[in-house]
Amino acid sequence: MIFNKVLDEVSVYEAGKPIELVVREYGIKSEDVIKLASNENPRGCSPKVIKALQDEANRVHLYPDDSMYELKDSLAKRFNVKSSNIIIGAGSDQVIDFAIKSKANENNSMLMAKTTFAMYEIYGRQTGTKILKTNSHTHNLDELLDLYRANKDVEVLFLCLPNNPLGECLDTKNVYEFIEKIDKNTLVVVDGAYQEYARFKDEAKRIDVDDLIEKFSNVLYLGTFSKAYGLGGMRCGYGVANEEIIKSLYKLRAPFNITTLSLKAGIEALKDEKFVQNCISENFKEMKRYEEFARENGFDFIDSFTNFITLKYNKGENSSQIAQNLLKKGIIVRDLASYGMNAIRVTIGTPEQNSKFFSIYKAL
Amino acid sequence: MIFNKVLDEVSVYEAGKPIELVVREYGIKSEDVIKLASNENPRGCSPKVIKALQDEANRVHLYPDDSMYELKDSLAKRFNVKSSNIIIGAGSDQVIDFAIKSKANENNSMLMAKTTFAMYEIYGRQTGTKILKTNSHTHNLDELLDLYRANKDVEVLFLCLPNNPLGECLDTKNVYEFIEKIDKNTLVVVDGAYQEYARFKDEAKRIDVDDLIEKFSNVLYLGTFSKAYGLGGMRCGYGVANEEIIKSLYKLRAPFNITTLSLKAGIEALKDEKFVQNCISENFKEMKRYEEFARENGFDFIDSFTNFITLKYNKGENSSQIAQNLLKKGIIVRDLASYGMNAIRVTIGTPEQNSKFFSIYKAL
Repeated sequence: MIFNKVLDEVSVYEAGKPIELVVREYGIKSEDVIKLASNENPRGCSPKVIKALQDEANRVHLYPDDSMYELKDSLAKRFNVKSSNIIIGAGSDQVIDFAIKSKANENNSMLMAKTTFAMYEIYGRQTGTKILKTNSHTHNLDELLDLYRANKDVEVLFLCLPNNPLGECLDTKNVYEFIEKIDKNTLVVVDGAYQEYARFKDEAKRIDVDDLIEKFSNVLYLGTFSKAYGLGGMRCGYGVANEEIIKSLYKLRAPFNITTLSLKAGIEALKDEKFVQNCISENFKEMKRYEEFARENGFDFIDSFTNFITLKYNKGENSSQIAQNLLKKGIIVRDLASYGMNAIRVTIGTPEQNSKFFSIYKAL
Repeated sequence: MIFNKVLDEVSVYEAGKPIELVVREYGIKSEDVIKLASNENPRGCSPKVIKALQDEANRVHLYPDDSMYELKDSLAKRFNVKSSNIIIGAGSDQVIDFAIKSKANENNSMLMAKTTFAMYEIYGRQTGTKILKTNSHTHNLDELLDLYRANKDVEVLFLCLPNNPLGECLDTKNVYEFIEKIDKNTLVVVDGAYQEYARFKDEAKRIDVDDLIEKFSNVLYLGTFSKAYGLGGMRCGYGVANEEIIKSLYKLRAPFNITTLSLKAGIEALKDEKFVQNCISENFKEMKRYEEFARENGFDFIDSFTNFITLKYNKGENSSQIAQNLLKKGIIVRDLASYGMNAIRVTIGTPEQNSKFFSIYKAL
C-alpha cells in the first residue's frame, strides 16, 4: 500500500521506558523500580485530585463537557486572560501539534534550538516542513536570530523556557527583546511546560502569560499539568494566545480530546497550589544533592531550572552504557546519546529515590 | 496571521450537549437531566472497571506504558490476531485521523455514505482531500461502487457497520463481496464502533476481525470502548489491520496518546464481558419500546443495530423544534437537521430514563 510521502521522513518518539517494561524485561519487582526518566512529579499529584478522581470514576461512561467550560474558566482566572484565549490539549504536546499543523507545510520552515523537545521536529516532519536548528545544543538567541533572518520562510519558531531535555532557561527580558525582532506572521511558541520550576528558582525567568500574549499577538504560550502538577498520566495541557490563533488551532482539535477524568483532574489540581509549591521547593533542595554528586564524581552538569538534571560525561564514560547499567539495577534514566550528547538526564526523585540513585550509581 | 489554507474548509464538530451545559443554561438540576444524545452506555461501565480506576488513581502522575503491552495483548487474544496488528487511539476517532492523514491529500479523494460519522469528513478536510458521498443517506453499496469506479483517485473508503448516526447495518456477506472489488491500494476503513450491538441482534451483521484482515490486506477495522463498554469519557479505541498499515499509522501516533487510567480501564473492561452483554440485551429490549412509541405516534424510524434509534418526521413536525423543546425539559437528544434530515437520534437509555422520555415527549 502506498502512503503519503511525508511519512517516509517521520521518526517515532522514543518514550522513557515504563516501569512495566523493566519488570517484564529484567524481572525486577515493580516496587523496586525507580523511574527517573520522564520528569514526572515523584510526589504524585495533590491528594485532593486523587480523591476527586475516585469520586468521579462512576462517570467515565459520559463524554467530557467538550466546551471545557470550568477548566478554561479556572485557567483564565489563573492567568488573567479570557477563556477564549485558551485551548486545552491532550498534554501540551497536542497543542504543539495543532500549532505546527496550522502553519507548517512543505513550502516553509520551522526554527528551534538544536537540542530541545523532540516532538517539535516529529510533528514538523509530518507536514513536510523544513526543520532549522542552531549549532548550539542549548538556546542561543543570536544564532536563532541569524537563522531566522537568513531564512525568509520560517512560519513557526520554538522557545522552550526552560528547555527540555537540557534544563537551561533564558531570561524573560532577553526573550522579550528577541520576540520584538520577529515578524508578526511568524508563530512564536513559548513552551512553558516547566515554567513553574523556573519562576520558583529565579524571578528573572518568570513569564507572565497575560503580559506576554498582550504584547505579542504572534505568541502561543504552552503550559501543562504533566510536570509540577503531577498529572503526566492524565494528558492535560493548554495553549494561551490571542483569539485569532486559538480559533485556528480549534479547527484542528477533535471533540473530546481529553478524558472526563483529565478535565476533573486539571480543575482540582489548580485548587491546590500549596501542594505544587511544596513539591517544587523539595525538588530544588534535592537537586543540590545531584549537583554535589556531580562535583564529587567529576561530571559536568547543566544548571537546571526544571525537575531534572543533565549530567555530562567528558572523561571517557559512555552515557548509553551507564544508562543501561542503571536500568539493570531498576533505575530508569534518559540517555541523551540520540541527541548527539554523551550525557544522561535524571529526573529529581523523592529524597529516598535520590539516595538510592546515588548509592546504586556509586556501586556500578 | 496567515494559516494553512486547508483550515479555511474545516468545520468544527458539533458535539452532543453535555449535562453541565443544560444545568448552566436552563437551570435544571444535574440529576434531573437525561442525556440521550451521545450514545453512551446508560448503565455506565463495569463496576470492576470503576474499582480498578479508584485503585489506580494514585498513579496518575506516571505516564502510561507507551508500548500498551497489556491492552494490545488482551485485544490480540480477543480477536485472534497479533499485538503487531493493533494500534490504540484516544477513541477510535484518533485512529480515523491517523488513517486519513496517512493516505489523503489535496490530490486525491475519500468516499463515504452521505450520512455517516461526521469526523470522517472533518479530518479529511484538514488534508485538503476531496470528499465524495453517495446520494442515499444510508450505506448503498451499488452507489459506493459506482462512485469508486467513476473516481480513480479514491485513497480511503469508509464503511460504518453499523452506521452512526442512522443505525442501519449492511450484511457482512455483502460487505465482503464489495471489498473484493476494491483495489488493494485503497484503504477500506470498516468502522465497528457499534459492532457489539449489531452482532448481538443479527448474526448476519457479525464481523470476525481476524478473518476480515486476513482476507483483505487493505482493510483497517476500528473498535472502541466508548459505546458497549461504557467508557466514552476515557477516550480509548483501537484499529486492527495488517502490520504494514499499522506501522504507517504508528508514524502519526504521538507518544502517550491515551491516559494511564484509560489504559487500565480498557484492560479491565475486556475482563467483564458478562456486564457488556447484559447491557446490550437490555438495550434491545428497551429499543422495542421506542419502536412501539414511534408506531403509536406515526413517526418513521430506521431499524437500528446500535444503542440509538433515529426517529424520522414526515407530518409537518420540525426536528430542531422538538429537540429544543425536549432540551428545555432536561432531555438531550441529537437533532439531525445538520445532516439534511428532519429527524432526531435518541440514545436508548435505562428503562427509567426511557419512560421519562416517553412521558415528557407526549406532554410537549
